[in-house]
This record gives sequence, structure tokens and C-alpha cells, in this order.
Amino acid sequence: MDFYQKFNVNIDMAVEAHDIVRGQTGQEVPGVAMDKQSFEHAEVTVIKIMDPSAVQAMGKPVGTYITIDAPDIRQNNKQIHNEIAEVLAKQLSTMLSIGPEATVLIVGLGNWNATPDALGPRVVNHTLVTRHLKKYAPQDLSGGLRSVSALAPGVLGITGIETAEIIKGVVEKTQPDLVIAVDALATQSADRIGTSIQLANTGISPGSGIGNQRMGINQETMGVPVLAIGVPTVVNAAVIAQSAIDQLLQQLSTNPMHGQTMANINPIAMEQTVKSVLGAYSTNLMVTPKEIDDLITFIGKIIAGGISIALHPSVDPEEFHMYLH
Amino acid sequence: MDFYQKFNVNIDMAVEAHDIVRGQTGQEVPGVAMDKQSFEHAEVTVIKIMDPSAVQAMGKPVGTYITIDAPDIRQNNKQIHNEIAEVLAKQLSTMLSIGPEATVLIVGLGNWNATPDALGPRVVNHTLVTRHLKKYAPQDLSGGLRSVSALAPGVLGITGIETAEIIKGVVEKTQPDLVIAVDALATQSADRIGTSIQLANTGISPGSGIGNQRMGINQETMGVPVLAIGVPTVVNAAVIAQSAIDQLLQQLSTNPMHGQTMANINPIAMEQTVKSVLGAYSTNLMVTPKEIDDLITFIGKIIAGGISIALHPSVDPEEFHMYLH
Amino acid sequence: MDFYQKFNVNIDMAVEAHDIVRGQTGQEVPGVAMDKQSFEHAEVTVIKIMDPSAVQAMGKPVGTYITIDAPDIRQNNKQIHNEIAEVLAKQLSTMLSIGPEATVLIVGLGNWNATPDALGPRVVNHTLVTRHLKKYAPQDLSGGLRSVSALAPGVLGITGIETAEIIKGVVEKTQPDLVIAVDALATQSADRIGTSIQLANTGISPGSGIGNQRMGINQETMGVPVLAIGVPTVVNAAVIAQSAIDQLLQQLSTNPMHGQTMANINPIAMEQTVKSVLGAYSTNLMVTPKEIDDLITFIGKIIAGGISIALHPSVDPEEFHMYLH
Amino acid sequence: MDFYQKFNVNIDMAVEAHDIVRGQTGQEVPGVAMDKQSFEHAEVTVIKIMDPSAVQAMGKPVGTYITIDAPDIRQNNKQIHNEIAEVLAKQLSTMLSIGPEATVLIVGLGNWNATPDALGPRVVNHTLVTRHLKKYAPQDLSGGLRSVSALAPGVLGITGIETAEIIKGVVEKTQPDLVIAVDALATQSADRIGTSIQLANTGISPGSGIGNQRMGINQETMGVPVLAIGVPTVVNAAVIAQSAIDQLLQQLSTNPMHGQTMANINPIAMEQTVKSVLGAYSTNLMVTPKEIDDLITFIGKIIAGGISIALHPSVDPEEFHMYLH
Repeated sequence: MDFYQKFNVNIDMAVEAHDIVRGQTGQEVPGVAMDKQSFEHAEVTVIKIMDPSAVQAMGKPVGTYITIDAPDIRQNNKQIHNEIAEVLAKQLSTMLSIGPEATVLIVGLGNWNATPDALGPRVVNHTLVTRHLKKYAPQDLSGGLRSVSALAPGVLGITGIETAEIIKGVVEKTQPDLVIAVDALATQSADRIGTSIQLANTGISPGSGIGNQRMGINQETMGVPVLAIGVPTVVNAAVIAQSAIDQLLQQLSTNPMHGQTMANINPIAMEQTVKSVLGAYSTNLMVTPKEIDDLITFIGKIIAGGISIALHPSVDPEEFHMYLH
Repeated sequence: MDFYQKFNVNIDMAVEAHDIVRGQTGQEVPGVAMDKQSFEHAEVTVIKIMDPSAVQAMGKPVGTYITIDAPDIRQNNKQIHNEIAEVLAKQLSTMLSIGPEATVLIVGLGNWNATPDALGPRVVNHTLVTRHLKKYAPQDLSGGLRSVSALAPGVLGITGIETAEIIKGVVEKTQPDLVIAVDALATQSADRIGTSIQLANTGISPGSGIGNQRMGINQETMGVPVLAIGVPTVVNAAVIAQSAIDQLLQQLSTNPMHGQTMANINPIAMEQTVKSVLGAYSTNLMVTPKEIDDLITFIGKIIAGGISIALHPSVDPEEFHMYLH
Repeated sequence: MDFYQKFNVNIDMAVEAHDIVRGQTGQEVPGVAMDKQSFEHAEVTVIKIMDPSAVQAMGKPVGTYITIDAPDIRQNNKQIHNEIAEVLAKQLSTMLSIGPEATVLIVGLGNWNATPDALGPRVVNHTLVTRHLKKYAPQDLSGGLRSVSALAPGVLGITGIETAEIIKGVVEKTQPDLVIAVDALATQSADRIGTSIQLANTGISPGSGIGNQRMGINQETMGVPVLAIGVPTVVNAAVIAQSAIDQLLQQLSTNPMHGQTMANINPIAMEQTVKSVLGAYSTNLMVTPKEIDDLITFIGKIIAGGISIALHPSVDPEEFHMYLH
Repeated sequence: MDFYQKFNVNIDMAVEAHDIVRGQTGQEVPGVAMDKQSFEHAEVTVIKIMDPSAVQAMGKPVGTYITIDAPDIRQNNKQIHNEIAEVLAKQLSTMLSIGPEATVLIVGLGNWNATPDALGPRVVNHTLVTRHLKKYAPQDLSGGLRSVSALAPGVLGITGIETAEIIKGVVEKTQPDLVIAVDALATQSADRIGTSIQLANTGISPGSGIGNQRMGINQETMGVPVLAIGVPTVVNAAVIAQSAIDQLLQQLSTNPMHGQTMANINPIAMEQTVKSVLGAYSTNLMVTPKEIDDLITFIGKIIAGGISIALHPSVDPEEFHMYLH
């Protein structure tokens, strides 16, 4: 994965790392299991990374990664969005191994001032928080609701503090049984922007997400299990440039006339081509669809809704569709 | 202070508590010292609460409270705003007893979604944070700058977590030598809205500020000194109603014909009058000037600028006027 | 209506002008008809001003004024909001005398930077505009939908242009058959803030609304019928102060001991009391509930929804509840 | 310019059209004159399109196009920003042929909800409007100031009305002597994002800008001269993909071994490569730097400042640097 290192491009999604590794080796990856399921408005892919050799190949820790691909999110159709929120809730439930009294802290990572990075804070805005009701209010106000709190800690450039340090401090004070961390991701495929959701029971590794966390946010650093929900909201422009080159070379290579060309292209020349196309902003250039604001709004509500349905199973999902508008 | 308790009205400003107590007793308050200073665009009042009897009379802890009254903030004049920021910096410096290597955490209290309560988060936005530069970047990037971090923890209704708990968690993780907490206050006098700044070396008491903190944010709860910077941004509508009644009755009382009236007015009737005027929103009705958005913008920049000048004395104030635009 | 003139306080709502006039004269107002209707979550009052003497007494032009009082808007309950939107749609329909092909321009008056004045621009944001679909897109994209356009013209301080001039220019270019103008109003009763909706087939008179239009926005100035939708979002603080005085004096006057007092109070003294309570911001002091941001969000959606249901009768209201989330 | 048509990519900047035409033909473009000037923080390029053959080659109308390239805008340094605003003011002045009493309407094109398209509305927010002072206020309030008004008309998807129709309506009502239209542009070079400013005395042609105006905004449609100020804020992702291919092929072509390759590459294959890289969002994918929010803030203030200095020559530029913060 030379290109990714040189251009400092994260492969945040396990399904994409899996595709790349299989593409490079031409065979299945040992120690990785994959399963797929189809719903009316969503394709679900479950990838399990099971042993250390797979960890090295995939560049991701041992754990389960569920990807929900739902291109219909692009449609401004509340009914479809509700159905996708219910698919999300179901997948979340398979990953949650917490009792009915367990308490949960939702963390919305990212920078609220930058649209593609604002997903986490938006989910926090839409989250139904109940911890203060459970703690301060009479029983009947909070009956049937799990204790949920929520935090948008900001980013290093705004606070001067590692995000993980802030969360760790709050976790130690409030002692939740589970952290759910929501973050914006980078993807290799523009089609996934705003339409895919990745769940990972591994939490968030250092260097992941648009904001590139320096410290991981996971069971090891937090002391409690961390479930990560990530949505791709950008493609690095370097990926677009490199993809164009790769695809062109592949086309050339299928033509016997050009077969020799492939073999002779200098990898440094390719790297320089990409650098020259990007210019001074270099790998800080991000690709997003024009409608990114709408997409963030849609998927922010879907995730907040899906989390609420999964965390408060005794409440009718219709209630959340009603209230979370 | 019957009225204030009945209508759950805070007297956030020490100068106002002082005026009220002196007004009620008609004499100086034992254990309280007051001093005044004039600048071109600011009047500075220093109140010291020195002993327990004063604490009870004033309803505020032992400590020093500096009020800067600067009605010219209302003018959209950057030059005047810079001068007021320098007055603030000077007053802050008299209160800071920290060495040049001491680290500081700025906390912006309040709800960013409600304009009059958004002052704290706005100050955080404008703050020059440097802690990450000191920690991660080469020396020359941060030369001459003190280590400063900043946090806008949100409010209970958004997070489900006591604000003080969040701050305490972050303080324990990041170990600052001082916390500066910025908050929006309620005032008894509409003229002070957006034009006064109160500094208090006592931190923030439970029940203070627009958001009414349940837990104090002070040396006792945080374990490090807490300097509070408060700006009045609202008057409770109950205060407006009660003031109208009080002033009318006072006018009547100076007229010998009405002298008897005063004596016979039923306090319960007065209370019911105020309640009836407020209606269903009751003491949640707040009074602000039409131009509150501009005022919050102006004073947010003044406070961020004043803090930066005070915390980084080796930097020319002009620099901050340049950069903090 | 001395007080209102002296303090430059508008009586934007016809129901309130009616109450004041009846209160002052102690009898029904000639030339004014009133009718009331009850719904589960709304009380509807229809006031018709029918002749010139009524115009003078009420300070409002001849026309029909419908007020929908719906205190349940304060509840964050989408189901109730939908029902109120349908009541609004029904009342709007009784006022619309336009054919199925008639085109409509929605105008959102007010300043998007000031929460209580931002209602009009918010409604424009939520409005389903279709004029460009009717004009540029294939038939089937816009089938069953009326041609609707929408504009938030800003305020004089932002544009330097009378709002009515901007609208008039756009009306001349786009030739709608009807203008619906949405504006934030001042009320005499805090309880109405964010929970009442006034419809008026007279358009908007000069001097009305929070922003105090200089030029009317009505059939006379626009050349097409103008239907005004107004929502009270503030009480002038002068009204709170004056109400407190009035109610106290009324209580005193019912007591024979104080009867004489009433007669002897100097009106100038009362005026000075109010002025002194308001201070330097004077009549620019506005009273709003703490939760004004939520209220504006709720009622903005209700009005956009109600307008859409009324304007596109061939579309199932459920559709709008689905799409306008 | 096959590629640009196929992918519906605008070449909004005259300097870039000039480079492309010269690159394709390998020689100077007849009927086009170019001149360059250097300043401490800006390079200024003046392109004059003088005759119909040049119009066809360049795809732009006869007129003068000034480009200010100022990469230092990226630095958060108010002093440098002020200097660039003064360069802009000077260039604007060379293009303004209006008397001291002439009135000006500033139009901020674009969508305030989408960061890269929000430049125009932001400039309107920062503009010092004076038309209402000249019209309604005493002489001394507006002495020395030209009459300036400002409008952010929104975009077709929000209003349902062609932007040019709205502006035309307002121009007819308010009769300015000049329109200055500010818009976000697309560029071929990522380095220009947020750091270049194009002035054109031709106004805005149909199909230009990020929002792709359908109708031109120019002297022909408005009836008064229109000066356009455009800032590139995005690169179309198709341009990135195509540039990568072009540059790679060029490298190959300089190698005698690959010379033949170039000649044999199927243009349809190249087109399909680009389409496949873009995926479903296709030419709606836009490339922006991560710091686009800051860039829009910086350049919005620079443009508002430059316009004010140019329009009010009797006012000391320092004043605007003070007030427009």
C-alpha cells in the first residue's frame, strides 16, 4: 500500500481495505471472514478480522466491521430514511452486548465548522439525552429509557487538547458502560460519500477519520468498550488522481500493443504526476459532492435515530421517527 | 431579598448585590470594601468581600469581584474595542498570580444555540489555543506563548452531563494550573447588557449564570484556582415588572397624599401582579436588546483579546488586535 | 392608545387591538365582527373589520384577521405540530381565492441573524419551491404541484433597500397571482410568543412587524393580493413594565382606601417610571422565552407545512409531513 | 475543448482559458492582449479580449479581465489581508468609470448553505450599506459616503426564481448606476482556490460560476454596467482526474519508447476512465481544501474591504480595516 503511505491517505473502511488487499494478492485474505445480507434499501457487509496475519494485511485491529451501503439516502425521502435507521438499529443491536441498565456515552468527533467533518457533532445535536433525567428527575419522566449522555469534544486545533484526553476525562467522571463514537471517514469510492455507515467494535484507531486522531479511542485507552460508527464524507483528491492513472494503465495493459508500456512506467513519475495535479494544498484537498450539506443532514438524523432505537428497545421506533424530526 | 427567591432570580453581579444590600439597609455593608477607577472608555469597580457576615449579606463567597462598565462597546468601533480589551487585560493581570510557565484552560460555558447564552462558546472560538503547539510542535512555533487550551462543554440539556463534571474530567487529564471560566450572566439593569464585564477570583457558584450551574466551578470542585469572567446578557422579565412597580410606589410614597398607600399594599398582590404579567413562560422570559447578536460578537472578541493579552505578556498587544479579527 | 404611541409599540395582532379597544370603551366595537372556533390543539378567532369607524378604532385596515392560538406548539411533539399545520392549512384555504393554476410567491420577512426576527427566512428555507420545475423541467416532475417561488429579501440595515421595493421588483418580474408574506410580530401577551398565528388578507401595513416596515406590503403597493402570516415572537419590554403598573393600579383601585390614588397619579410620572426601568436601550428591549430557538424551529416548520398543504391540495398531507422534516 | 464540454466543466477564469488555448495551439491568441504587474503580496494579470475571433477561441465576451493571484491569503495575517484588499481596491478603481454621485448595488450570488458557494452572500454580510442612510438619514450621517445597497438573492433551488430575474427586478426599482456581482468560480488549478480574484467588466455570462446561472448578469440583461468579482473556490473532480491522465501521457510521450502509445489511446477509453473514477455523483463532485471555511472567511472580508475602499475614496482605508473586522 505504497501510494497510501506516500500520500498519507487513510483507508478508513474495512470493506475497502479488504478489496484492496484482495486486488493486490488476487486471492482471499487468510484470517478474514466476510458475509453479506440484502435489505430493501441497504446492503450489509460483515467483515471479521480474526488473527494477527489478517491484522497486518488489513491494517486494522481484530474485530467485527459492519458496512451498511444505502445509496437511497441521497433521496430526500423520510420514509426510506426511517427504514435505513431501522436497519442500522438492528446491526447496532447485534454488536451491543450490554444489559438494560447499562449507561452509554455518545461521542460526536469532528469539527462543527467544516461541513464534511461535522457529522459527529450533528449526531450529538439530534441525540435524545436522558442521563440528567434519570439522575435528577422523577422516575416517570425517564421510564423505559436507558441513561444516555452525549458530547462533541471538538478538535485539536480548536481546543489544544487531544480529543481522546477529553473523552477519557469525561468517561472517568461519568463512568458509562459503553462509548459510541461517531466520526466522518475518508473513502476510496466517491459513491460511498454520505451513503455508507461502518460499525466497528474495535473503536477508533490512531490516525483514523478525517480529523486524524493521534490517540486511539478504544477499549484500551478508554477502559470501557468503544463502538465506532463512521460515515465516509470525503475522498482524498490524491485518490481520484491515482485512480485515474491506475485505471488508464489497466486499460492500456489489456491491449497487447501497450503491454510493454506498463512495465516501463517509472513509479516516481506517477507520484510526481499526482503531486503536480494536487499542487500546494497537496493531500489536504478533499472531494465532496455539491449536495454535501443535505447529505450530512440526512445521515446525521438517520444515525441519531438508529442509535436511539437500538438503545431504548422498549420504545416504539415510530416515537423516534416522530420526535427526531 | 424576598422577590429574588420567589421568582428564582439570580443576582449574578457583585456590584448589583452590593447596591441592593446598601439600598435596603441604607448604610455601608460591613466586611465589604469598594474601590473605583476611571478610564477613557471604562469605569472599573473593585468589590472585596472579606468576612462571613458580608458573605451572608451579599450572597456571594469571600473574594474579589471586578466590574468593568464600558457602554461604548455598543459602538461598532474596533479601536475602542481594542482599548477596552486592554483595560480587561490589565484587570485580569492583577488577578492572575501564575508564573510564566503556568498552563491555562479556558472554559466557555453556555448554550451555543441560544444567542444570549452563547458568549462562552464564542470566546472559545476566538481563543488562540497553543497547548498542542507546545506539546507537539517544534519550539520556534510556540516561542513566547503560554500553553493555553479551551473547551466549550455545552449544557446539561444537550449533554445529559453536569458541566462541572465534564470540566473536572478534563482538568484531571490535562492538569492546567488555572481555569478561566467565561459565562453569560443575568443583570438587574438593562444598561449593563453586553457592556459590563465581571471578573471574580471565586470561580462560579452553584445556581449562577443564565444556564444555572447546579455544581460550582471553583477551586473547591476543580482542585485548581478558577477565575470567572461573566458578562450580563439578559434581564429577567420579572425584574422589569418588579422594578416598574417599585419605582411607581416610590414615586407615590414621596407624595404625602399617597404615603398611606404604600403601607397598605399587600405583598401577595404585588407578587400576583408580576406573575400575571409574565404568564405561562413565567421566569423563563428574558429581556435582551434587539442588537444582541452584534453585542455578543463584539464582547466575545473583546474578551478573547483581553485574555490573550493577559496570558501572553511577551507578545505585542497589536499582534492580537491583528490576528483576532 | 397613548402609551403605544409614546413608546412606539406596535399592536400587530388584531385580536389584541380588539381586546384593548373593548377594554378602554367597555363595549363592543362597532363595525367589527368576531367569531370563535375550537379544535383539539387550537382556538381560532376570526375578526372582521368592516367599516371606516372600526378602522380608526382598531388602527388596522378593513379586512379579515384569523388568529390561531395553539399553546401545544411548545411541546416537541411532531404529531401535534402536524395537526396544527392542518388547522392552519384549512384556515389559509378559506382565505385563498385563487384558481388551481394560480402562481404564488412566498416572502419571508425579517433578519436571519436575529433569532426572534428570523421566522420569515426560516419558512422560506422549509418551503417546497416548484416554479423552476414547472418552468424548466418535464411535466411529470411537477405534476399536481402549483407553481410556488420563495424569497427572503433581508432587512433595510443589511440591504440598504426598503424590503417592499425588493419584493415589488420581483413581483413585477415574476408576475405571481398572490403573495404570501410571513413575518415575526410583537404581542401584548407573552403567552402568545411562538404559539399564535395570525392570518390577514390585508397584507402588511407600514410600521408593522418586528422590523417595522416603512412601506406597506399589500395589494395597493404590490398590485396583487397579499396574504400576511404573522407569528408573535417578542413582547416589547415597555409593555411588561406598563402592564405591571396597570395591573397594580387596577388592584389598588378596587380597594376603596386607594380609590383616590388612581385619580391622582400623574401620567407623566408613569411614563418616566417605564423609561427609567428600560434605560438606555429604551424600546429596543425585547422579551422572549429562553427556548425561543426551539419555538422558531417548531413554528417555522408548521407554517411551511401548512402553506404547502393549502397550496397543493391534490397532494396527500402525509407527504408533506414526510418530506418537510 | 472537448473534455470541458463532455464533462460540463466551466472555464470561469480568463487566465486559465488563455493558458489552455495557448497550450493547445502553441502560439499567442490573436485579439488577446496580456499584461502583468507584481506587488509584494499579489501578482496581477490583465487580459483584454478585443475581437470576435478571440471571443470564440476564449469562450468569453469582449472585455477586460483582471486576475489577482495572492497565495498569502492563506496566512491568517490581517496586515497582509489589508494590503491585498488595497491592491484589489486599486484594480477595481481602474475598472470603475463612475462619478462621485453614482450609486452602486452589490449582488452576492450563490448558496449560503454550501460553504464553497457562500462567498457572495458573505461579502454582502460584510458590506457597508449606505443607501438607506443617504435616503432617510440626516446629511451628516452619510457625508462622504457613496450610496451603496447590497443583495444576496439566493439560488434557483431555494427561490424557484432565476437569480437574474430577481436582480433585474431590484435594479429596475432602485436604479443603481452600476452593479457589482460577486460569485464563487471553478478553477483548473487547485492552487488558486481561495487565493485568486478575477475582475471582469463583462459581468457574468450564462453558465458561469459554481451555481451555473442560466441567464447572464451583464449590461445586456440588466440595463446598467455590471462588474463581476469572482473567486475560485472549487476544482471539478473531473479536472483532477483528467489532469492526472494528461500529465502521465505527456510524460510517456517524451519517452521515445512510448511515443506510439499516445497516438493509440482511444479518447473514449479516457472519457470512460474519468467517468468511472467519478462514479454516481459524476460532475457534481467538487474538490476543496480542508480549510475552505477559513479561506472563505478571509477572502470574503478582503473583497468587502476592497470594494468599500474603491467605492468611498474620500474615506481613509484605515477606517475600513477598523470597521470591517
